[in-house]
Amino acid sequence: MDAARADASDRAVEADELERLRQALEDERQRSLRLLADFDNFRRRGARENEAARGDARRAALLPLLPVLDTLERALAAGSMDADFYEGVAATRRLFESALREAGAEPVEAVGQPFDPNLHEAIGTVPSDEVEPGIVVREVRRGWRLPDGLLRPAQVLVAKGEEPGRPWR
Amino acid sequence: MDAARADASDRAVEADELERLRQALEDERQRSLRLLADFDNFRRRGARENEAARGDARRAALLPLLPVLDTLERALAAGSMDADFYEGVAATRRLFESALREAGAEPVEAVGQPFDPNLHEAIGTVPSDEVEPGIVVREVRRGWRLPDGLLRPAQVLVAKGEEPGRPWR
Repeated sequence: MDAARADASDRAVEADELERLRQALEDERQRSLRLLADFDNFRRRGARENEAARGDARRAALLPLLPVLDTLERALAAGSMDADFYEGVAATRRLFESALREAGAEPVEAVGQPFDPNLHEAIGTVPSDEVEPGIVVREVRRGWRLPDGLLRPAQVLVAKGEEPGRPWR
Repeated sequence: MDAARADASDRAVEADELERLRQALEDERQRSLRLLADFDNFRRRGARENEAARGDARRAALLPLLPVLDTLERALAAGSMDADFYEGVAATRRLFESALREAGAEPVEAVGQPFDPNLHEAIGTVPSDEVEPGIVVREVRRGWRLPDGLLRPAQVLVAKGEEPGRPWR
């Protein structure tokens, strides 16, 4: 009778142990699954962040160079009586543009296009009889875009209608 | 006796089940540990790759722009009789340099430095009585470096000794 009781007690301990192990195994499996899911998310986010880091670095490298091209263009616009020197500088400007394109940048289309707040920054309006209201009539500063977004907007003047109440006043 | 045998058989099954569960739990724990370690490695590698992607993008953006500055410098070196235009272009050149510095690039020190194959590319040697052999005496094309490495080497002329057998001939 004592032996039987001890036996029953052993079996209860074993049943507890079985239950504990089953629970622990289930917990551990859930933990692995969560880890796998986290890992997968992290991998996907990592690839996206890598792309974003690339884009940021290119943007940060190119942005300070755009005013240099602006200055060069202003110098050329002023003209020179030294034709040889002028031609050398004009060649540099063309090279500058190709280098920016090689680095992935493209000028934003502006004059003749409908004003687009995603690409253009309106710094004024111009009355015009010839051009539809809302069309860009002059580019004051060139805009540049990258494949992954705008580098800087074009600063433009926009045609406004003669009548009051038109969108561009 | 039959009951006792059945009982013994039950207990053997239970013992097997216990053993199987313990093994499965151990396997699952090992699996979690491996996953954690993989995850950790991946995270570390991800951070490094992110830095590398940033560096690559900056390098790719800046490299095509360096010949533009070279051309501008050559135009300026030729001089001009149009002082105003020349000054405008000289200002552009200064702005260009600041923009490159703002983008993280620094010129490589060359003239007066000992030739360093990690920074300089020797395109010739010059006999010199005044300068120690192996010292850079002229920079033909400026070199540029980034915080994470060389952008392009300086192209230089290096002093060679008058006697034969010196390292720079």
